[in-house]
Amino acid sequence: MRVAIDAMGGDNAPGVEVEGAVNAAREFGIPVTLVGDEDRIRAELAHYDSTGLDIQIKHASEVVGMHDSPSDAIRKKKDSSIRVAFELVKSGDAEAVVSAGNSGATMAAGMFVLKRIKGIERPAIAQIFPTLKGKTLVLDVGGNVDCKPVHLVHFAIMGSVYARSIMGIETPRIGLLSNGEEESKGNELTRETNAFLKDAPISYAGYIEGRDIFAGAVDVVVCDGFVGNVVLKLSEGLSEAVGKMLKEEILKSFLPKIGFLLARPAFQRFMKKVDYAEYGGAPLLGIDGVGMICHGGSNTKAIKNAIKFAHEYAQRGVNQKMAEKLQENFARSTQPEGLNKETAIS
Amino acid sequence: MRVAIDAMGGDNAPGVEVEGAVNAAREFGIPVTLVGDEDRIRAELAHYDSTGLDIQIKHASEVVGMHDSPSDAIRKKKDSSIRVAFELVKSGDAEAVVSAGNSGATMAAGMFVLKRIKGIERPAIAQIFPTLKGKTLVLDVGGNVDCKPVHLVHFAIMGSVYARSIMGIETPRIGLLSNGEEESKGNELTRETNAFLKDAPISYAGYIEGRDIFAGAVDVVVCDGFVGNVVLKLSEGLSEAVGKMLKEEILKSFLPKIGFLLARPAFQRFMKKVDYAEYGGAPLLGIDGVGMICHGGSNTKAIKNAIKFAHEYAQRGVNQKMAEKLQENFARSTQPEGLNKETAIS
Repeated sequence: MRVAIDAMGGDNAPGVEVEGAVNAAREFGIPVTLVGDEDRIRAELAHYDSTGLDIQIKHASEVVGMHDSPSDAIRKKKDSSIRVAFELVKSGDAEAVVSAGNSGATMAAGMFVLKRIKGIERPAIAQIFPTLKGKTLVLDVGGNVDCKPVHLVHFAIMGSVYARSIMGIETPRIGLLSNGEEESKGNELTRETNAFLKDAPISYAGYIEGRDIFAGAVDVVVCDGFVGNVVLKLSEGLSEAVGKMLKEEILKSFLPKIGFLLARPAFQRFMKKVDYAEYGGAPLLGIDGVGMICHGGSNTKAIKNAIKFAHEYAQRGVNQKMAEKLQENFARSTQPEGLNKETAIS
Repeated sequence: MRVAIDAMGGDNAPGVEVEGAVNAAREFGIPVTLVGDEDRIRAELAHYDSTGLDIQIKHASEVVGMHDSPSDAIRKKKDSSIRVAFELVKSGDAEAVVSAGNSGATMAAGMFVLKRIKGIERPAIAQIFPTLKGKTLVLDVGGNVDCKPVHLVHFAIMGSVYARSIMGIETPRIGLLSNGEEESKGNELTRETNAFLKDAPISYAGYIEGRDIFAGAVDVVVCDGFVGNVVLKLSEGLSEAVGKMLKEEILKSFLPKIGFLLARPAFQRFMKKVDYAEYGGAPLLGIDGVGMICHGGSNTKAIKNAIKFAHEYAQRGVNQKMAEKLQENFARSTQPEGLNKETAIS
């Protein structure tokens, strides 16, 4: 099955999208469909030797910009590249969508065209973070800024299934992000969620703090999309700032500069470890299909890896397993009544 | 005037508190009163030559532990070191309190004993962060986990006055932490607050993102205490993790190890720049008096610097200026009616 790439979405579209798709087709043998302005895509494709690669183009006349609102993107731009890409999944012509465009619009288009997994009220965007022990999945990192406890419970279940199916963790430990580890901590949202998660069919580790994310204390960190987005962007910003501050100090004197040159291989291995491009995109969990959201400034490698992860996600039947786990959650007699009711409405 | 130090609060109490107080008295000539178990404080003091220094001891028989609830600390432990320290301010025997103990209990005791600045509903804990451009004040970092817009407006005003009076920034730029810079972003809380802040008597820069904090985009970052606490602990954790990961990579081979040795002076200057101990404690803004909250694991230097900042805070009449700025806010005809009413109740 093919992976559809929104060729018009990112800051450097369609250049990096086309090159990333060519590389994914070549290195992993994944068939790809580039969706967007056919002329511009053809012009980009002409730069590469794609002989023998299974690369198709699907024309779409419109583009959703970074400043368009998600709902406008669906209502006003019906022939946008992101929407047409999801239509390919709906019609069975593709198994997954990869986009570096407007993430809100990608989520809205995915929900609108493919609908949600049964029982899920709100999809979430999940992001893999490098930690001292390996990798940790954080969700939601920006899909839903105002959440109810039931949404966070669903995020926890979806994250657990994803960590097991895609990250290969047998029994993923799930933590709820809070302002302290003690049960007395938390805000209204986390306190209610904490009670529900104890009864959910997951390995729940309770509250964790901000510092625990990079220590790798748990495999999956659950939070609302407002907090998760702050966590994501703060982490990117702080990593950059630490690198810049160190470099600045090193450039101030001659001897450290030599030291830096000698230490460079270690710095480079470190940078590779914290490079988000290595992890490809952030999966959009909860839609009845596969969508992978990439950073707007994604490079070719990030697009290539996102295509690979999207393909794996689709092949491993992750959504089916999520639906089953949700059913198990509803069936638990200990699960609070209110939670079942609320979920049943959706 | 004297600074009262809760000698029993921190993880390493009363050792670091006593040494920090001795050093503050010696280096800055600030008179100090150590509050807590008199015998233990005397035993610690015996390790130092305090000849000629103005150091007093005020006995308090109880200690509020890290796991005590803030309200218990006030109701049950009436002779606790933190409460007795604030009583010294109330009676005019001290100008400020410094504590590395339970921050929730410190805030509760401060509010209970000294009350709030007129017009302030909720005090906030403010923390200085090192950035690429200098320093940024973030508040609230843990005082109030569930906030209303009016609380964030007061945080913005208090932060603005603090940045001007203590950090020496003529016209501090205030940013509201959100999940994106566009007005369409934010959650319910930030959207309402954003509208109010446009009319407040501050230099408001609008929404900022997580990455902007360390870039130093603004001088003061406003958020609720849940988000702020995640930001604070994530930053500490990530800085530690980055350091450890780099060291790990460097230790893997021989050549980089030499490089690291040569680059060490730069690393040390960098570590000094991001060392929280340099900035002393986090001021408790909004109480009618001065309280400085230190990290539980504070070292001697952190305590010493917190005493210095507490003294400056008290000397510069910051609280009086905050009260005036709040009055200016209420008086603005453009300020939404609901905000005035809500504030007037408190």
